Amino acid sequence: MVQKKRPTLYDVAKQANVSIATVSNVLNNKDEASEETIQRVNEVIKQIGYSRNESARSLKRGESKLIGLIVPDNNPFFTEILDGIQQECEYYDWQVVVANSEESEKRQNQLIELLSAQQVSGIILAPVSETLSTTKIKANAPIVLIDREVENVKLPVIKADNVDGCYKATRKLLQNGHKRIGLILASPGISTTVQRKQGYVEALTSQNIQIDEELIQFGGNNTGTKAQIDGGYQAVIRMMNLSSPPTAIFATNHLLMIGALKAIKEQNLSIPKDISFIGFDDHPWQEISSPKLTIVSQPAFEMGRQAIHALHKLKSKDEIITTSLPLKLVIRESCGTA
Amino acid sequence: MVQKKRPTLYDVAKQANVSIATVSNVLNNKDEASEETIQRVNEVIKQIGYSRNESARSLKRGESKLIGLIVPDNNPFFTEILDGIQQECEYYDWQVVVANSEESEKRQNQLIELLSAQQVSGIILAPVSETLSTTKIKANAPIVLIDREVENVKLPVIKADNVDGCYKATRKLLQNGHKRIGLILASPGISTTVQRKQGYVEALTSQNIQIDEELIQFGGNNTGTKAQIDGGYQAVIRMMNLSSPPTAIFATNHLLMIGALKAIKEQNLSIPKDISFIGFDDHPWQEISSPKLTIVSQPAFEMGRQAIHALHKLKSKDEIITTSLPLKLVIRESCGTA
Repeated sequence: MVQKKRPTLYDVAKQANVSIATVSNVLNNKDEASEETIQRVNEVIKQIGYSRNESARSLKRGESKLIGLIVPDNNPFFTEILDGIQQECEYYDWQVVVANSEESEKRQNQLIELLSAQQVSGIILAPVSETLSTTKIKANAPIVLIDREVENVKLPVIKADNVDGCYKATRKLLQNGHKRIGLILASPGISTTVQRKQGYVEALTSQNIQIDEELIQFGGNNTGTKAQIDGGYQAVIRMMNLSSPPTAIFATNHLLMIGALKAIKEQNLSIPKDISFIGFDDHPWQEISSPKLTIVSQPAFEMGRQAIHALHKLKSKDEIITTSLPLKLVIRESCGTA
Repeated sequence: MVQKKRPTLYDVAKQANVSIATVSNVLNNKDEASEETIQRVNEVIKQIGYSRNESARSLKRGESKLIGLIVPDNNPFFTEILDGIQQECEYYDWQVVVANSEESEKRQNQLIELLSAQQVSGIILAPVSETLSTTKIKANAPIVLIDREVENVKLPVIKADNVDGCYKATRKLLQNGHKRIGLILASPGISTTVQRKQGYVEALTSQNIQIDEELIQFGGNNTGTKAQIDGGYQAVIRMMNLSSPPTAIFATNHLLMIGALKAIKEQNLSIPKDISFIGFDDHPWQEISSPKLTIVSQPAFEMGRQAIHALHKLKSKDEIITTSLPLKLVIRESCGTA
């Protein structure tokens, strides 16, 4: 592709022996040329492989047909959100591209700038920290937050009711007789972590059980998909080495759950006989795993759909929507029976 | 965001009380303004949230810093390829965006055009059919194929040696005494399917076993991630309803494998006692599944890395690289013992 130049409008005009204006008219379906000319121009376009330069066009229009989704890792939760976004984008004739910030704020901000510079129609962002640089908001494409909130700026947010979901899960384990419940959380600096911890604390407090900070482990300090899985694994190892280890474990995202289950298996503990367990999110492999896992289920697909809806409202009416969708506790075998 | 205009170079110049040329010099780090002016301009840029219009810049340069990856579905195999691409892109200071064609040729071609129009530096494509429109090649950004090949155009390809990998897996099942081996393939129209079938056929033929077409089932005629899983499920149901069902099953991609295992579980068949099984690709959940699955392992991460390497060669030296990486048979419990 060295030296190879993209064919221009001029190249088409020259080869079709017409003016640039005529080519432009044909491209814009204006009926100002003869049938024969239209056909000749279209043949040349096909032959030399001319295509419109969308950078030039989006420059004029001020935006492209692209929507950018920025995810922090490859948790299948985000893959399902993407499915919902894709479905809804078909309605608006938008296309989605996805980029991964790997829980790095620097990388996230680079991606916001890069996508905005590409004149995307909007960005759906799962932010990696509590705040978002305000110059990012002013200068860039319209942003809708998904899954996680930030403290310092008012943007549309599509989130799940994490406090309530984690309250329900913890209460279920309490009802099943557990008093020492291990909690595995992701990175401390994100809103979902804060809210999930809050649900756990409220459930214990409502039963007058004192919080033991040793039973609350952060498995997501490191970035990336594999690091999260390893974080869940290490959290269980640390908990089981306590002088009084937990009798139940609650892992608050899907990757942490996979790591935690791996550690439990390696310790030769049987679920739910030796230890009760509640995880997060359903994905296809769980249908073939045993025991059947009790999980907190997030409406990821719906969150994706609603994010596009919120983006459209923001763009068309400057309306800022905040939606909190309920989480569901799906009770199966791994949490024991009450 | 209605009516809200992106700040321009002119806005910066006006507010900083300098000429547009001065702002441009500051942006391009030319030492033609006083320290004080440089500082003032930078402050205004920050304050009003000016950012360069990358569409205009890429128009001039002819490309952006973006690389597009087009995948056919959300198979975790492609997520691992993406990890490899991301790592390698850091070296070239490229950013990756991903889009999903959902195995639709129309959608794939739209995405190629859209990404090219955004002046991406290149496209890594897992094509959805045997051929690729040649006008796509002429008109658009440089393309490197990954995983799958096409017949009609010469492009760089990074693929796995599917014939050999599937030959080895089938031979292993033959060595373990199986003669009726069910093969579950994805969509018939892609090169990987053709090659995986070829490896299976060669292994059976080498043992003078006649091919029974009823034992070869396509599970990937439908598009999308969930449809693939369902395809693997239905393939097993059809096979087990044959008058002489298979004693071993080989599922040739990860999603088909999940569906197949689900059907086997529902039929109350125990692996490897009632039926032997070989699947495709390792992913974290397999570490906690039992029995441990024998699989054909693809070097997905390395394929991603090499695709970026091939793209760079294509762009810088017009060199067309074709790389075929070996597949590995990882023997665990599910295929029984020889």
